[in-house]
Amino acid sequence: MKKVGILMGSASDLPVVEKAINTLKEYGVPFEVHVYSAHRTPLESAEFAKNAINNNFGVIICAAGMAAHLAGAIAANTVLPVIGIPVKSKALDGMDALLATVQMPTGIPVATVAIDGAGNAALLAIQIIALSEPELLEKLKEAREKGAKGVLEKNAEIEKLYNV
Amino acid sequence: MKKVGILMGSASDLPVVEKAINTLKEYGVPFEVHVYSAHRTPLESAEFAKNAINNNFGVIICAAGMAAHLAGAIAANTVLPVIGIPVKSKALDGMDALLATVQMPTGIPVATVAIDGAGNAALLAIQIIALSEPELLEKLKEAREKGAKGVLEKNAEIEKLYNV
Amino acid sequence: MKKVGILMGSASDLPVVEKAINTLKEYGVPFEVHVYSAHRTPLESAEFAKNAINNNFGVIICAAGMAAHLAGAIAANTVLPVIGIPVKSKALDGMDALLATVQMPTGIPVATVAIDGAGNAALLAIQIIALSEPELLEKLKEAREKGAKGVLEKNAEIEKLYNV
Amino acid sequence: MKKVGILMGSASDLPVVEKAINTLKEYGVPFEVHVYSAHRTPLESAEFAKNAINNNFGVIICAAGMAAHLAGAIAANTVLPVIGIPVKSKALDGMDALLATVQMPTGIPVATVAIDGAGNAALLAIQIIALSEPELLEKLKEAREKGAKGVLEKNAEIEKLYNV
Amino acid sequence: MKKVGILMGSASDLPVVEKAINTLKEYGVPFEVHVYSAHRTPLESAEFAKNAINNNFGVIICAAGMAAHLAGAIAANTVLPVIGIPVKSKALDGMDALLATVQMPTGIPVATVAIDGAGNAALLAIQIIALSEPELLEKLKEAREKGAKGVLEKNAEIEKLYNV
Amino acid sequence: MKKVGILMGSASDLPVVEKAINTLKEYGVPFEVHVYSAHRTPLESAEFAKNAINNNFGVIICAAGMAAHLAGAIAANTVLPVIGIPVKSKALDGMDALLATVQMPTGIPVATVAIDGAGNAALLAIQIIALSEPELLEKLKEAREKGAKGVLEKNAEIEKLYNV
Amino acid sequence: MKKVGILMGSASDLPVVEKAINTLKEYGVPFEVHVYSAHRTPLESAEFAKNAINNNFGVIICAAGMAAHLAGAIAANTVLPVIGIPVKSKALDGMDALLATVQMPTGIPVATVAIDGAGNAALLAIQIIALSEPELLEKLKEAREKGAKGVLEKNAEIEKLYNV
Amino acid sequence: MKKVGILMGSASDLPVVEKAINTLKEYGVPFEVHVYSAHRTPLESAEFAKNAINNNFGVIICAAGMAAHLAGAIAANTVLPVIGIPVKSKALDGMDALLATVQMPTGIPVATVAIDGAGNAALLAIQIIALSEPELLEKLKEAREKGAKGVLEKNAEIEKLYNV
Repeated sequence: MKKVGILMGSASDLPVVEKAINTLKEYGVPFEVHVYSAHRTPLESAEFAKNAINNNFGVIICAAGMAAHLAGAIAANTVLPVIGIPVKSKALDGMDALLATVQMPTGIPVATVAIDGAGNAALLAIQIIALSEPELLEKLKEAREKGAKGVLEKNAEIEKLYNV
Repeated sequence: MKKVGILMGSASDLPVVEKAINTLKEYGVPFEVHVYSAHRTPLESAEFAKNAINNNFGVIICAAGMAAHLAGAIAANTVLPVIGIPVKSKALDGMDALLATVQMPTGIPVATVAIDGAGNAALLAIQIIALSEPELLEKLKEAREKGAKGVLEKNAEIEKLYNV
Repeated sequence: MKKVGILMGSASDLPVVEKAINTLKEYGVPFEVHVYSAHRTPLESAEFAKNAINNNFGVIICAAGMAAHLAGAIAANTVLPVIGIPVKSKALDGMDALLATVQMPTGIPVATVAIDGAGNAALLAIQIIALSEPELLEKLKEAREKGAKGVLEKNAEIEKLYNV
Repeated sequence: MKKVGILMGSASDLPVVEKAINTLKEYGVPFEVHVYSAHRTPLESAEFAKNAINNNFGVIICAAGMAAHLAGAIAANTVLPVIGIPVKSKALDGMDALLATVQMPTGIPVATVAIDGAGNAALLAIQIIALSEPELLEKLKEAREKGAKGVLEKNAEIEKLYNV
Repeated sequence: MKKVGILMGSASDLPVVEKAINTLKEYGVPFEVHVYSAHRTPLESAEFAKNAINNNFGVIICAAGMAAHLAGAIAANTVLPVIGIPVKSKALDGMDALLATVQMPTGIPVATVAIDGAGNAALLAIQIIALSEPELLEKLKEAREKGAKGVLEKNAEIEKLYNV
Repeated sequence: MKKVGILMGSASDLPVVEKAINTLKEYGVPFEVHVYSAHRTPLESAEFAKNAINNNFGVIICAAGMAAHLAGAIAANTVLPVIGIPVKSKALDGMDALLATVQMPTGIPVATVAIDGAGNAALLAIQIIALSEPELLEKLKEAREKGAKGVLEKNAEIEKLYNV
Repeated sequence: MKKVGILMGSASDLPVVEKAINTLKEYGVPFEVHVYSAHRTPLESAEFAKNAINNNFGVIICAAGMAAHLAGAIAANTVLPVIGIPVKSKALDGMDALLATVQMPTGIPVATVAIDGAGNAALLAIQIIALSEPELLEKLKEAREKGAKGVLEKNAEIEKLYNV
Repeated sequence: MKKVGILMGSASDLPVVEKAINTLKEYGVPFEVHVYSAHRTPLESAEFAKNAINNNFGVIICAAGMAAHLAGAIAANTVLPVIGIPVKSKALDGMDALLATVQMPTGIPVATVAIDGAGNAALLAIQIIALSEPELLEKLKEAREKGAKGVLEKNAEIEKLYNV
């Protein structure tokens, strides 16, 4: 199975990124986690991206805040699908990272998820990998059913409380 | 090869969507185009999504403006990767469609591209399909090189004009 | 009397929604509360909406955050008036939910109230039901007078403190 | 049948408001159109609102731009449901009117539709009136079906063009 | 000397408004404080405004949050200068109140100060009253000099700490 | 009668400012127009402000775009009331000028009107001057009545067209 | 004299950038213009930056739109001062480019100027170069005086028109 | 070596500004810290700027919040490069200070860094000074290498934790 690369621009993004790590573990999808900064380690970032196909990666997830360039910088150096997680930092409530991640120019797409949306970044990566992994596809379907069941159980609880 | 589904919420989104169609044609990736509205044809939208895996789709691209729910509504009914194109409409400069597309809750990801970014939506779809299509991967690499060459040719022209 | 449906996209919206529940109780308007997610239980959401008229609902209130699609998804499946409460979540201060709720395309209206404005959502629902319930109309008028009186009492207190 | 009041803050809002007028005509719902400004004719605005119930109005639609206070000013003087249309003007792309219309304090709701969303304002008014007018309810259902059919016809056209 | 009217839309605005009260006290400018809501006590608000000139008011300060209509509603009923303080509330960081206060249509101006800027609202009122009160004008000049001196003292402290 | 100073940061702001000039002419209020830039002629701007009281000015109106500092720079050098008109320029739809004008720190107020709101800036200035000019106060009241009459005439026209 | 590097992310940015070129010409400051894209030619961009000190550059100006990463990518590869011009493109009125340029993480500064502010980018570069070029410093001072004179001439014209 | 001037609009900005002070100390670049307000001490601010070249300053850093005029006011009075730090205050999350600092009109540039980005302001100042101080240039290069090393060490730690 292809691996998922998880990059974060700063070790301080780890609390956001952990949700992605946990989701990939749940699904048994192999992954690697790295701290590479588009600005402080541009070389290592680019090297990682250039070698990603040969190193058996299938998707790369990038989390970064503020003028969040990591996803774009990685996408510039590989034709693998790159998923961007805009990380909310101290000012502007994450709007800076969102726009810096999603508004990519034609030619270099970044698949952007919600601000701090690491769980969905992992799910999206799994959906992509699952296209050639039928078992993974089944797991995704089961998780959806479980998700729906979870909502309906909550619904049952709340119905009991309020609807008499 | 898996197909790409291209959905638009309204026929008026066609001028934006055409860039995606043309890109898919260039790469020889099979696709289908449909007009399904999350709000006006919720049934048909859901049906399309539910049958997408069986109908040999690999990725679904959804373009919509304003309270752009199409991508989310499709993603709610399939575990295939769904790409959202926020379409700029008359007010708010596309910010409404961007937030309605990208800020998905955990469990149902939408891979969001730039406002009106149909070209990148198609490229992202191709990158995903290419994971199991080595020839497509090569084409993507060549296109990148060609893209770089295009920039460098422009560079050469402008250098001649200004740097003496 | 027609019932008011109160839907929330996630059980975590309950603290916001409770204000609506309490307001409906005060007015003695019958209601039902449910947790249905536009994305995680699209089927149940749609079913609820389709049967709402037959199940004697008169108005449906929907609360959701982020890319808040619940109100739009319900509105797509019924011609009853649908009221949307945009719920503020962790990023963007509720602007995402507001735009995803209010910017509906022509044909499928959602009556949107303020961010986290559950009290007003209930009042609006009561105003709508009251069109054919003269007693309810009287209660609304009384509440207005009481509201005005409340302001004027506060005014009297503050006048005593500051105006000598 | 109860009437719909259509107020606009300035005669210059008429091009936006006309869509609401036409929709009400289509459905055969009686209506009255007035130009009353919350700021320039506060008295007449308040008078209209205070007498609206006695004058057989069931819903009031208010269109205004900039610091759009009309809907709120009307809502402050009646317990009828009030629908607000934020009108886009020269600066800020309608965001000013949207926030000034939707962010009402608890006690005085305004049912807000999209920026310049006059068509939906009318439909919402009709949905409210239709609660006690079964024929109107049927017309709304038919229009929905027609709306869906319209989308599907467009879909068929576009499918023919692109899917071979 | 003419009085300054200080109105707040809700007693909960008092912590913001107190800064204005204290400033007026410091300058010995007579004032009255009232809680009048544009939406919950529209009549009393309008009455206050209509009688303001006869009641010897010279300026009226209005503080309100969210869809902040109070200043506009008062301005609509008097030709006295009206100063608006947009009050920050739970969502949107005060942007809603700012736009609802400042974006007034031609004919009915509101002199808007910063979000929660009650101190400046009072100073502006005093500047206006001071046009026909030479002593007040002197006090304003002295306060300016004192303000400058305060900054320069802080400067001296910090210079000592850092510049050696 | 005290004069109104009208300053603009650039001659290109004249089309916006003209509305203020015309309004002052209508009311017969004496005024002076100047082009002084807070950034390009800081000295002249400050000189104007410092001498304004002695030169018989009563109010100063300042129009500027982008990082609109003119009103603040003038206010920093006089205790006369200063009115700021945020001018919309090429980017950001006037939001930059609005925030740079209105968000003044405590101690130095600027009475801000709507983006490009030159008409209201003049009216506000006249309202301030009118506090000690009873005839002007009467003119303002008459204009209000005329304004109301204008709206009601438009109302009559539109009523004839639509209400039958 | 050190050279100024002018980079643009796309040849389509040339109309914005030309103002910078013309300003540098006026001051006789040597410069080079290049089209290098952070995303399409990451290698060439990085190479340019890495060699910039050795190639006798003193400052680098970077213009880019949307998720404007060029300035950051250049800054990541040199310790020369880098100036970023956020370019307004089709959506969001330049806010995306502004935030993607200015919100740089600690360690890698980008000196950001106004949206489309190419003239100021050049002036800032000249100010930096002028620190070790006394003649250039004189030219800057003269230009400032000329700028002030220009404003005052406009002032004289407008004074003649309006102040009688 | 030329000095760096560090100005803050209010002593309350010191916690933000300290990062700049510490960075300059680390690099051994001489500096002076002052509290000068564009609005409360306009004279002293202007005097500082006018004398800055003669007082051997090479760059001036200005920190201010809200309608942040300090950087612009200083830039208006010197041709030295001026760096602006927008300071986040109570409302609007720093957007007001950012726009008031960066959106300068042509002729008077301000080199703007991120909201509260004092560390980068200092680094940018050092980069400018370093153009004629080869030792400083070396220090900057070393710091970059150290910064990269720091990221890579964090990377190694996290790799050990997660990649097995």
